[in-house]
This record gives sequence, structure tokens and C-alpha cells, in this order.
Amino acid sequence: MPGDGSLIIVMRAGATREDIDGVLGRLAEVGAEAHVSEGSHQTIIGIVGDRALVQQLPWEALPGVERAVPVLKPFKFVSREFQPEDSIVEVGSAKIGGGRFAPIAGPCAVESREQLFASAEAVQKAGATILRGDAFKPRTSPYAFQGLGEAGLELLAEAREEFGLPFVVEVLDPRDVDLVSSYADLIRVGTRNMANFSLLSELGRQSKPVMLKRGFTATIEEWLNAAEYIYKEGNHDVVLCERGIRTFENATRNTLDISAVPIVKGLSHLPIIVDPSHSGGHKELVAPLTRVAVAAGADGFMVDVHPTPETALVDGPQAILPAEFAALMDEVRALAAAMHLEV
Amino acid sequence: MPGDGSLIIVMRAGATREDIDGVLGRLAEVGAEAHVSEGSHQTIIGIVGDRALVQQLPWEALPGVERAVPVLKPFKFVSREFQPEDSIVEVGSAKIGGGRFAPIAGPCAVESREQLFASAEAVQKAGATILRGDAFKPRTSPYAFQGLGEAGLELLAEAREEFGLPFVVEVLDPRDVDLVSSYADLIRVGTRNMANFSLLSELGRQSKPVMLKRGFTATIEEWLNAAEYIYKEGNHDVVLCERGIRTFENATRNTLDISAVPIVKGLSHLPIIVDPSHSGGHKELVAPLTRVAVAAGADGFMVDVHPTPETALVDGPQAILPAEFAALMDEVRALAAAMHLEV
Amino acid sequence: MPGDGSLIIVMRAGATREDIDGVLGRLAEVGAEAHVSEGSHQTIIGIVGDRALVQQLPWEALPGVERAVPVLKPFKFVSREFQPEDSIVEVGSAKIGGGRFAPIAGPCAVESREQLFASAEAVQKAGATILRGDAFKPRTSPYAFQGLGEAGLELLAEAREEFGLPFVVEVLDPRDVDLVSSYADLIRVGTRNMANFSLLSELGRQSKPVMLKRGFTATIEEWLNAAEYIYKEGNHDVVLCERGIRTFENATRNTLDISAVPIVKGLSHLPIIVDPSHSGGHKELVAPLTRVAVAAGADGFMVDVHPTPETALVDGPQAILPAEFAALMDEVRALAAAMHLEV
Amino acid sequence: MPGDGSLIIVMRAGATREDIDGVLGRLAEVGAEAHVSEGSHQTIIGIVGDRALVQQLPWEALPGVERAVPVLKPFKFVSREFQPEDSIVEVGSAKIGGGRFAPIAGPCAVESREQLFASAEAVQKAGATILRGDAFKPRTSPYAFQGLGEAGLELLAEAREEFGLPFVVEVLDPRDVDLVSSYADLIRVGTRNMANFSLLSELGRQSKPVMLKRGFTATIEEWLNAAEYIYKEGNHDVVLCERGIRTFENATRNTLDISAVPIVKGLSHLPIIVDPSHSGGHKELVAPLTRVAVAAGADGFMVDVHPTPETALVDGPQAILPAEFAALMDEVRALAAAMHLEV
Repeated sequence: MPGDGSLIIVMRAGATREDIDGVLGRLAEVGAEAHVSEGSHQTIIGIVGDRALVQQLPWEALPGVERAVPVLKPFKFVSREFQPEDSIVEVGSAKIGGGRFAPIAGPCAVESREQLFASAEAVQKAGATILRGDAFKPRTSPYAFQGLGEAGLELLAEAREEFGLPFVVEVLDPRDVDLVSSYADLIRVGTRNMANFSLLSELGRQSKPVMLKRGFTATIEEWLNAAEYIYKEGNHDVVLCERGIRTFENATRNTLDISAVPIVKGLSHLPIIVDPSHSGGHKELVAPLTRVAVAAGADGFMVDVHPTPETALVDGPQAILPAEFAALMDEVRALAAAMHLEV
Repeated sequence: MPGDGSLIIVMRAGATREDIDGVLGRLAEVGAEAHVSEGSHQTIIGIVGDRALVQQLPWEALPGVERAVPVLKPFKFVSREFQPEDSIVEVGSAKIGGGRFAPIAGPCAVESREQLFASAEAVQKAGATILRGDAFKPRTSPYAFQGLGEAGLELLAEAREEFGLPFVVEVLDPRDVDLVSSYADLIRVGTRNMANFSLLSELGRQSKPVMLKRGFTATIEEWLNAAEYIYKEGNHDVVLCERGIRTFENATRNTLDISAVPIVKGLSHLPIIVDPSHSGGHKELVAPLTRVAVAAGADGFMVDVHPTPETALVDGPQAILPAEFAALMDEVRALAAAMHLEV
Repeated sequence: MPGDGSLIIVMRAGATREDIDGVLGRLAEVGAEAHVSEGSHQTIIGIVGDRALVQQLPWEALPGVERAVPVLKPFKFVSREFQPEDSIVEVGSAKIGGGRFAPIAGPCAVESREQLFASAEAVQKAGATILRGDAFKPRTSPYAFQGLGEAGLELLAEAREEFGLPFVVEVLDPRDVDLVSSYADLIRVGTRNMANFSLLSELGRQSKPVMLKRGFTATIEEWLNAAEYIYKEGNHDVVLCERGIRTFENATRNTLDISAVPIVKGLSHLPIIVDPSHSGGHKELVAPLTRVAVAAGADGFMVDVHPTPETALVDGPQAILPAEFAALMDEVRALAAAMHLEV
Repeated sequence: MPGDGSLIIVMRAGATREDIDGVLGRLAEVGAEAHVSEGSHQTIIGIVGDRALVQQLPWEALPGVERAVPVLKPFKFVSREFQPEDSIVEVGSAKIGGGRFAPIAGPCAVESREQLFASAEAVQKAGATILRGDAFKPRTSPYAFQGLGEAGLELLAEAREEFGLPFVVEVLDPRDVDLVSSYADLIRVGTRNMANFSLLSELGRQSKPVMLKRGFTATIEEWLNAAEYIYKEGNHDVVLCERGIRTFENATRNTLDISAVPIVKGLSHLPIIVDPSHSGGHKELVAPLTRVAVAAGADGFMVDVHPTPETALVDGPQAILPAEFAALMDEVRALAAAMHLEV
């Protein structure tokens, strides 16, 4: 049963009979099953019971307990054990997951009709199946450009009509979820909001698919827990997006954790894509990191394409030109063919 | 003028005259002043102009640019340059900043009247001037205890009446700001929400003081930018709280970055306190890390105190007992006296 | 001239004329050229002069200096500017660099003739061009298996005769360099010794090629500086090996920093390979991370292959079986063909 | 018995009877004792046996094993369990450990007799009990000043005569251990060499006390393992030195991990001091971080003092002036008195 979960409690070397009985008593109170293994040196107690209940109790505060080691992961519905086959998420006319490699592209932020339409036309021609472009931007500095808001959403909807591309857009505030959901085909949670549990729950209660970016300092387990917040509210269309983590290396904006792709594939049935633009932070890294995403077995990628990056209001240094995107799509198709994937 | 800001643009070794003119042209367009320094090897362009405008432009996307190095920090109102003297924040009858060392204590989460009142009575007797206790808990797992909600706020208000202690409580959702603001003396932004800019802006538009915890993966500069989000909306009563950062060391839950205290004191006029409970994650570390906070020159500390930690629903392993808190207050007073601080 | 280097000195907002003259005087003393740019707010001094001399002086200790920003990288001989074309390193009959993808495989440690020969035969048949296998093991615990020493080197030399494969082996101590150099085709510096400058200099003074693994906590710049230590002593046959860095993520032993491959290719002419076994720490990650290495543009990979991993004395969890290696080589060939590389 | 050690093996949910028997068979082969706990969901095997043997075997490579969790720490002689009372290390006329707070001060590198003697005289007058000053410097760039070598050792020995201060000096190469040991009172292993096991073993075989700095990316457990390398060779006079770890924060050179002091005190009997100069990297941080060291319960501190930091050849930005050191010693004495420590 997916709600089950184990925990191992390691008693200190000098733990007394009373200490051990104290732990067993607390276990009995919460209805969990205990397996005691008394070594010559230390006693170990294995526990099976309701995962959430067992793992949240303060075992390490009990006398004689050295440490408590969780055995099962705390998430359940998003786990591969709960659903062995891959999830496939439908985004308008496009699909993510299940043997395809989905190309998502467009400008970082929607700045104007001209800029958006030029990008959308170019990426559609080169083979992108989903358009990106943001209307609300979370900015480290309160003095930076914050996006066009609803006017941006309207431009995205017009571009969808014009070029036949569904679009993905970020939402920042639980109060904007209804508005964004009424326009978007796929709603994105950005890296800074991965642990914004109010926003996640709200997204779990609407019907549009959600792309959940990894927090730049989140472990893979925390990321899957965040996906569980959406999933358990009833929305099962969740796409994960690896976009780099914060490390000591400063040659890149973030360090793309490409190992996360095969690890997530092992732990979860949800599709996972890669964002090579925001992880590297330099346009020279976009092509190699996109190829890497194909080779790692990701379900797609999302890339910033801008017709005139030098005038971009947000993240210009990492945007590639339409012609560079077209060349990249050729590389992607060659590698995907070698991997027996569709693009 | 606090809005001013410099940036240095380093041109590549092989940059052409045209490349340099391209940068200068773009600078002229945005009204910034340029100082060109042509070396035998490389050309360097110093820029003075509106900080927000200059720093957000994609200089590195222009031809011939090797990199753009910001010189002034992007925040302004919270900077020491903007206000040289220390800010003092009033929280009900208590004050934080300006030569005092403020003790804040209480349970991590409000669980019941008995638990809250037992804690409040004990910490008030031992010398705490502000009570802590949460009604809304952000939990990594959606299956963990999420707090008592408004009932918790009511219990906190009753404890304030009974023991004469103003209280601090966390808010998670911009939609709860009005509710929490109607009860609390000091509203806390937790580590996971430090970059939740919607929440920060909302808190900037109400009148209760705000405690802003450092994101566990935020740089000091990002943290001060987050404070700027609150400050610039009109709320100048902001207290910073260092609570540990995420590193590779796993002997502690987080690594307390104690250097942040003197660094923040140099960069900003805002008061800064330390949370030794959540940084260490073990009760054995609470006393040494609290002493460390005094010695570093912090303006206070916030600590989890629970009458029966082994039954706590949240974070039991790091809570100390009322008697341990009283002993700790004695140590704090001795060190504070040696530092010529009031407690 | 490769010895040249720039530095930018940013003066504090309140720096006096005397402060500025102090910096200029110090510059004149060391014979460096200064370019002063006085803004309305701050003065910036650009410096050109001998790189090593200029960058090591304590500019930030001079009155009025806010900070000193290095512009050129401190390494020179290993830089792409010094030698624009790719270096190709010959290792016995094999080559690394210049459009090939070199497969290196074998057991982590040499344990016995049977184990080594079984591995060597298998990897040679599957297409490896260089054999790996260690005789000296650096172990975190002093109580763990430390390797067979010279007996291991002799077995490796026998395997070379038998299977026609040159071999790579690690050296730990500058006093062992002569011994190891008398046997090996390629000498490896492990991650823990990347900043062991005595060892690096000693390796620079012998003639066998050197594989320099990245320190698991070294920046790319520090790694290239370490390569410079070898190169400047006269040994130009240096191969870099990315093997993962230490981050907060603990689902993997280390986080493979795949972006390092294109970044190093941009900064340096030296070949760079990837070690998917030691970065991931789990055998399930070996195949995806090897594919990723091909896609990133690496010059080869090095992988642990063991006939019976469950009996391995070192690093068994990450070793793959001979049959798994053969299947992996098929994947590598397909991807390399799509990338127009030879294997 | 200190050599004993436990390990917990968690079997996968679907592990078969054969898988479990496979693990038990391997345990029997190495003579370890097993305690099997079969849950409804998963089987857990607790192991007691020779620590080094048990922990180094590749349990995770055996069929059906999900993971192996070490319970006891791998070090033994340096553990608090092995020796409950604090070690006190004698360094010439000075002592480190056991209720004193030892001040160590002097220039980062020995540059000349004038510079060394001026520093030594000043720090001796202000109350330092041990002189620091290096003759061999490990430098990231091969082009930076590498130290005076034996001439530096001679100057240090002269200063010892003149001012009555024993001295600490760094050694970089196992081939220099005899030379350095013939001069020094305390031999330091720098952060880059913490895992240079050849150097550690060599130092374990000579009789002078050793100061072991923490690797800037080493966990506390790895650091204590490194101390074990020295201790087990017969040299029991080991002093640990916390000097900051590498994190994402770049406002400081490294992040002082002050929690390491109480944690090491819990795990080990060895004395531990703090280096506030190299952790912070800025002279403004030296005083607060030194106070923090006292408050955390450290056994001493080591600080760079230079008569003219602006001319220093190494690490000038972090050196304090003799007068600043004297003022700092007053602060140290006040705090130490409040902590009931001797200085």
C-alpha cells in the first residue's frame, strides 16, 4: 500500500531497557509495527506504519535514540511504485512523456507583439511543439522589469491562434492561478516557488497541466514531494523540469544536475524535461546541454529563443537566435534518432 | 543618490571599434554615463546610471563583451549608505536592534492551549521578551501536520494577554496576510518563502513589523534584495533572521553562517537575529550557537522551547526544555555583559 | 603575451585623492600600467601588467580600495588563447583528443590476476582502448583496503602485454612517481590530490602523460591552474577528467558537472574526459552519464568494469559487468556516429 | 571494543529469500554477526562486526539490497568513546585544550627577518602563546610566491629564541617532514592536504604535534578520519583547526562552520581551534569570528597579524595590525572570563 512506510530507529550504545520500552510504547500509541533487533552493541528498531505519521514524529527527541533513518521516500502518488508505467501529459495538441522528446521554445519574457510573434513563428518552423514566454517575472531586485501581466497572456493566446502552438507560462501568486489557468495550456511553477506550498495546492485544484521546476537548492526528494502537493489535490498532469542547482562553481549560473534525469525516471512515473538556458546562463552552453538532455533520456527541453537578444529585457545573455535554434533542432533530431526517440 | 549604480563592462581581447561603439550607443540610449579605459590588451567601460536600468540590461549579449561586473549592490533603502544609523524595530512592548540582545522563545508550532501556555509562562519567567509559536507550518511532505490555522492565532493572542508577551508568527500565503496581521505583533517570512515576492510585497503594504528569514540557499545580497521588496512598499520595520544555509555538511540540518551577522551589519541598517534551533537541528547545538550569536554582535535570537519535546508534532529534536532555556539565558546575560549589551 | 593580465580596482565611494595616489604609486613600483576612470560616484582603475605579480598583490588591503576584480584567468599555457588548436595526447597505442571518443575501462582496484585479466579481456573485446586499474588507493578510512602497490603495477604491465592495452593508474605520493612512471602509460592524479602541488610538479618533471581529475570541490579555474602546475614543468601531455563535484544533493555520490565539458573546451586546448562511475556512485547511472559525456562533446570516458562487483574490495556499487559494458559501447557508437565522432 | 561497528542493510521491497540468504552468506564469510528483522514490507539486516571490514564491502552491489546505512562512525582512536576525557596537546611551553583558550598569531608567510620579528614581538606582547608564519605556501597559481623554504624555518627558530614563543608552520610534501620536524614546535597540515594520506601517515610517524586543518570541502566525519590517519601511526598530539568550508555564499572567502566546534567536541577528545583569518578572508571579520570561537567553546584561535598588510606577499586583505590584535585580545579575555576559561 503506497501509504506504508518504514523507519529505522538506531538506539545509542548505552541505551537502557527503559529507553527501548519508551520507543516501543510510543510506537504502540500510533499503531505502528515494530521489529526489534538487539545487537551486542546497539539495538535497532525497524518500524512499519503510516508513512506520514511515523516519519514526522520526533523520534530523535526520545531518550536513548541515536538517530532515525527513513527507509521509504515520503512521497507516494508520484512514485514509480504507485504507477509503474510512464505518465504522458497532454498540452493542447502536444504531448510530453512516453518516448517523445518535446521541444519547447520562445522568449524568456513577453515584451511586445512583434518580439513574441517573431519568436513564435521561428520556433514553430524549426519544430517546437510548445511556445514559452512569460507575463509575470520573479526578479531578485524589486527594481527590475516584472512582466506585462494579463496583456502578456493575451498576446500569448493570440500567438497560439496564429501559429498553432500551445503555450507554457509561469504563475507567481496563488491569487493569479484562475486568471493564468483561463489562458494557458501548461502552467509553470518557477524555481523560487517550488516550495510555495499554497501555490502548489492551488494548482492542484485546477485542471491545466503544471510544469514544476526544481528549486535551485532542492534535493530530488524535496522536488518529488512538491509534485506530490499538486498531485494529491487531484491534478495528475505534472511535468518536472530540471534547471540546475546552486553549487560553489561560478563559471555557470547554476550547475545542471543531469543525473537527476535518470534518478527521477527511476523514482517517479512523471515526465521530466531539461532547461538548458537557465541552468547554464550562457548561450554557448545551450546547444551542448540540450544534446545532453536527449542523451540522458529526458522527455523534452525548454529553451529561450529571442529574435534580438541584445535588446531583451530579461535574461538576454542566455537566449539563442532563431537560426541557432533551427540548427540545434537538427542536432536534436540526429541524437534522438540514435536513441530511438521521436521528436 | 541611492538610485545610482555602477557597472563595469569588460570587452573581449579581440573586440573591435564597432563592438565598443555598439556598447556606447546602447548606453547613450538609456542615458547612462560611460568612462572608457583602453588598455593595450582590453578595453574596459565604467558605467554610472540608474542602477535598476543599467544592471538589468543584457550587456553580455552584445558583440565583443566578455563580461559585465556590477559594482554597487542592487538594493538601496535597506543599505547602510542610505541610513547610516541602526534601525530599531518595535514589536509591541519589545524592541529589536540598537544595543539590546532580544530573546524570542516558544514552541515551534502551537499544538494546544496547554502546550502553548506552559511554554509561554516558562520563557516569560526566564526573560524572553517575545513569544514564538506557529499556526501555519510549511511542510516538505503534504502528509505532515500543517498547523492549527486561525485557532492557533487565537491561542497566541490569549497567551499575549495572559503573559504580557508580544508574539511572532509565520505567514505562508499572501491571502492570509490580512488575517495574520490582525493578530500578530511581528509577522515572519520563512526560509522557503524568502523569494516569494508576492508575499513580500503584500507584507510591505501592511503595518506590522516583519521578520525575514534568510532563504537556506540565498546569498546575503539576495536576502537584502528580498528585504528591499518589503521596505520599498512602505513598511520599514524589517528584522532579518539568519537560520543556516544548505551545504554539503550533513552533521547539522543546515550550516549556521555566523559571518552573515557582521557582514549584514556592514551592509545594512536593519537589525539581525539568529535562529540556533533551525540552523543546527539538534538541541545540543542550541546553547553554543546562541552564545555565538551574542559574540557575533547579533541583535537577538529565536529558539524553540517545548515543555515535552518528545511529543512535539513538529521539530521536536531541536526544542529545548524550559529549564534548559533558563540556564541558557544566564549564559546569554554573562556574555552580553562582557560585550556591553543589554538583554 | 601569455604572461599579461588585467585587474580592475574599484575604489570606495568615499576614497580620497590620497587613496587613489596610493594605489597608483604601488602600481608604478611594480611596473604595471594604470588606466584611471573617475566617475561622479566612484573611481575605477584598470591595470595591465605581469599577471602573476599583479594578481597576487594585496590590493584590497590598501586604503580606499573596495575590491579588486581579476579580468584575465591566471593560467596561461593551458589556455585556448595560448594554443588555439586541440591538444591530442598519445597514450601508448591510443590517442585522446581531436575528434575521437576514447573508451577507458577496467576494475577500480587491481585485486588479483584473475580479476584483472577477466576485466581486461572483456573491455578489450568490447572496444576499450585503454585499461584502468589501481595499485594505490586513497581511502577516507585508514582501515580500508589500500591497494596491492608495486605488485599491482606488475599485474597491469602483464595485462598490457597479454591484451595489447596501455593502462592508466593513480599515483598518491611524490615519492612513488618514479616507480609508477616506470610502469604506466598514463598516470592519474585523483580528485583528493588535485591541489597537491608537490605531486603535480613532480609529474610535470617526468615524461609519461598525466590524467588530472577535478577536485570534487574545485572550480574549473582552480582545476586549470592545477593543470598549469604540470604543464609549466615541461610535461604537455595532460588529460582532464571531470568526475563530479560535491553539492547538497545526496541521491548521487557527487553531482556530475557536465557543463564543465563545453566550458573547459572553450577555455583550454587540453582534452577532457568524463568518469561516470565515480560521479554517480551507482551502476544504474553509468550508462546514461556515459551517453551524456558523448553528447557534451567530451573526448572520452573512464568506467569501472568488474567481473564480480559483489566481491569487489573497492567501489563495487558503481561497477558494471562486462556484458553491460559491451552494451554500453554499442550505445556510445550510435551516439558518436550521430555526433560525427570516431570511437 | 573500539574496532566494532554496525551497519544496517535495507533490502528492497521485492527482495527474494535467495537475496536475503545471499547477504547472510557473505556476512558469514567475513565473520560478522547478523540480526534479521523481517517486516511485512521490507527486510532489514543489522550487522555487528569489524568496522573497517564490514563498512568497506560493496553491500549495495548484492542482489536485492536497497541500501547500506553505516551506524557507527568509521574512526575509533580519535573518538570520544575511545577516550572520554579531553586531550591536551603541549606545544613547547604552551598548551592547547582542557579549559584554556590558546591565542596563535603571526604573519601568514615569513617574508623577511624584519617582518617576522616585528610581528612576533607584537603578538607576544599582546598575549599570544604560539607564533605562526609559513615557509612553504601552497598557491592556487604556480606563478605566485611560494615561500622562503628552509631560510624561513631558520628565521622562525630565531624568533622563537628571541621572543620565547614556540611556532607552528605548514608542511606540504612528505619529503619535507623530517626537515620541518627538526625545526617546528607544531606542524600544520593545510586545508588542501587534509586528504593527502601519504603526508598524514608520515606525520603520524614523527614526534612533533600536528595541527590538522579541515579540508574546505570535507565533512566533519572525513576530517576526523584524517586525524585517525595520524593518530593510528602513533602520534597522539593532534589539534584540529576549523577554517571555513566552501559554499555558494561568496561574500566571504569561505563560510566558517562554527557548529563544527560543538559537534567535534561531542565526537572526539581532540582539541579544536578556529582560524578566523582564512575563513572570512577580510580583516573586518577577524574580530567578530574570533569572539565567536570563544563563545562556541573552541580551544584557541589562529590569526594573521602583519605589521604592514598592504605590502604582504600573501593574503594581505585578511591580516590585522599589531594594535588591532592587542585590542582583540582584550575582547577575547572579557569573553573568556564570562565563559570561565583561561586565556
